[in-house]
Amino acid sequence: MHNFEFCNPTQVIFGRGTVPRIGTIVAQSGCRKILLVAGGGSIRENGVYQAVMRSVSAFGVTVVEAWGVRPNPELELAVKLSQLAHEEGVDGILAVGGGSVIDTAKCIAAGVYSDDLWGFFEKKRVVEHALPVFVVLTISSSGSEMDSWAVLTCGEQRKKWSFSSPALYPRAAIIDPSVQTSLPWRQTVNGAVGVLSHVMATYLTGSFEETTLSLDEALMRTVIRMVDRLQADHADYGARANLAWAATLAMNGLSAAGIEESDWSARSIEEAVSALHPDVAHGAGMAVILPVWMEYLREDNPGQFQRWATQVWGTGAIEAGITAMKTAFQRWGAPTTLGDIGIGAAELRDIAFKALEEGPIGKLRTLTARDVVELLKTAL
Amino acid sequence: MHNFEFCNPTQVIFGRGTVPRIGTIVAQSGCRKILLVAGGGSIRENGVYQAVMRSVSAFGVTVVEAWGVRPNPELELAVKLSQLAHEEGVDGILAVGGGSVIDTAKCIAAGVYSDDLWGFFEKKRVVEHALPVFVVLTISSSGSEMDSWAVLTCGEQRKKWSFSSPALYPRAAIIDPSVQTSLPWRQTVNGAVGVLSHVMATYLTGSFEETTLSLDEALMRTVIRMVDRLQADHADYGARANLAWAATLAMNGLSAAGIEESDWSARSIEEAVSALHPDVAHGAGMAVILPVWMEYLREDNPGQFQRWATQVWGTGAIEAGITAMKTAFQRWGAPTTLGDIGIGAAELRDIAFKALEEGPIGKLRTLTARDVVELLKTAL
Repeated sequence: MHNFEFCNPTQVIFGRGTVPRIGTIVAQSGCRKILLVAGGGSIRENGVYQAVMRSVSAFGVTVVEAWGVRPNPELELAVKLSQLAHEEGVDGILAVGGGSVIDTAKCIAAGVYSDDLWGFFEKKRVVEHALPVFVVLTISSSGSEMDSWAVLTCGEQRKKWSFSSPALYPRAAIIDPSVQTSLPWRQTVNGAVGVLSHVMATYLTGSFEETTLSLDEALMRTVIRMVDRLQADHADYGARANLAWAATLAMNGLSAAGIEESDWSARSIEEAVSALHPDVAHGAGMAVILPVWMEYLREDNPGQFQRWATQVWGTGAIEAGITAMKTAFQRWGAPTTLGDIGIGAAELRDIAFKALEEGPIGKLRTLTARDVVELLKTAL
Repeated sequence: MHNFEFCNPTQVIFGRGTVPRIGTIVAQSGCRKILLVAGGGSIRENGVYQAVMRSVSAFGVTVVEAWGVRPNPELELAVKLSQLAHEEGVDGILAVGGGSVIDTAKCIAAGVYSDDLWGFFEKKRVVEHALPVFVVLTISSSGSEMDSWAVLTCGEQRKKWSFSSPALYPRAAIIDPSVQTSLPWRQTVNGAVGVLSHVMATYLTGSFEETTLSLDEALMRTVIRMVDRLQADHADYGARANLAWAATLAMNGLSAAGIEESDWSARSIEEAVSALHPDVAHGAGMAVILPVWMEYLREDNPGQFQRWATQVWGTGAIEAGITAMKTAFQRWGAPTTLGDIGIGAAELRDIAFKALEEGPIGKLRTLTARDVVELLKTAL
């Protein structure tokens, strides 16, 4: 077990009917005027927006609204909204949405104090101040509601980069799983695949971090079972709630405690895909890439891959474990070939170039551009 | 899954060689003069005391030393030390030890602002201010290093009570598992039994909180495996480290997330035992009480008891699971009968009276005094 630090100050308020508590939380934090960040109109349709507005208004908090965050959110919007937040003199940012909205909110929270937001991503500067970020979560996937990371794409250069700061942990996150009942099935599946990939990025590099590895296995098994339950009954609140909590725990630091380093290369490849194809959701891309990525790297930490096959899929062989995962993705209706997400052989070199553009990727093994092309070929 | 809140702001610094970081942590928190709270001399013998003193002195922090905290710590000492802390004008409390030391430190942190410390335990008042508490952990068991609880015995009335406040979360906890290598085996075992009992108090009342229950099972299995490994090799750092981290996670709120209510009746009975027999360590008492307590209550949530037998002990029957647990305790050298801890039939009524003195106990079932006597009889 490697040395580690763990500190996660986010206050989680979890459960059915908790959305109306946002007003109290924002007001108790001393905020009087907030920027509400949101995506499209789905939060109007499921009533979350109305509940939030009623709640914050009841405490006399003024709301400036910023709509239009899209999947794979862009730096340009975050810069524009940082200026708006500055001009309006807001004292808090409220994200109502999923990972894209929350990440944009975090960027605004830091960007309001800086005229070089991209500099944080380029590691030219670190976040010294940030406005408090509050979250009302509407889709469980990224774990951003309880982590210190933000991922954005710089539109000009199509670079999908991330940065992190202790100042970016949301002050509070309201997770009401019942609001996710109205999600399209596809989004539930994409979210769950994303969660599995988060855990696996760390788990598969592990070896003797028994406590953390056992927790990770518990999270993976739970995610798989809960998606199966939800497929049988979209309205199963228990399954929705357990999936939501597992998703949050998958990225809040616990799933990696004591593991030396994660291998985010599958994610880097997927981010190259979605930088070139912004219409491809992260989870959809990961459903295609994870199985072939594992197949390609299975000999680089074979004991751990074997453990994964046994503990998560109940099978003695790595091959059978990977097949079981792919079968689950297919059963859930996720794409499992590059063709399914509209990518052909001609693009593989561009994806590999993009994935490696900023330097080497991979911890299990350092992947070359040829490696990336070779492993993607098996997903065509 | 029931609604819940989770917020745990303690900064954990975990791993070999981390004790010398205490100076930086205390100084960065702005503390200039601290009260160091400790037990007997074991921290001199294993070098932890010296490392702590060197580290805080290097930052010019003044240290007032308070030694002599014993297992089942007493209110009287905490009151005395609160006065000392007040007179000396310290601005932080540093606990160097295990649960008893940390709990005493928390009481001092709150007691310095109050002349009625017992009032917190009696729920006559709530903690409004507390000095920051820092921890250098020397035995993993109570989980107090990352929770908001303090348990003390009021000597006069032999009442072992607890209180909690968000202000009591340690600011930071240094957990260096390697300092626990020199612990007597008995203390390692008592610690581990305590950890299992913490998880089970919540787990056994559960039903459909899949994420939390799976995490709990992972923690219980890890604890059992790590103790077995340590019994084979006391110097196995990996086993020590994973046991330590599991112990911390068992009480930091995660193991109970979404479970409506825990059943602390086994603990109440043990606390009655150790209030009457202050020489009986909490873990030793729990090793005796847990098996008979489970046997007595097995029909009150049979599905969950069954799940526990299967997932933790790999057996299909509740009976076999309880036997497996008892066998593990015996294998580790823990006491498993009341006789082993010096308690005879004549005391059972006193223990029952003490356990129920302040009101009913039990969530799986509300236990009467007769219930307590009956279940204890089977442990004679």
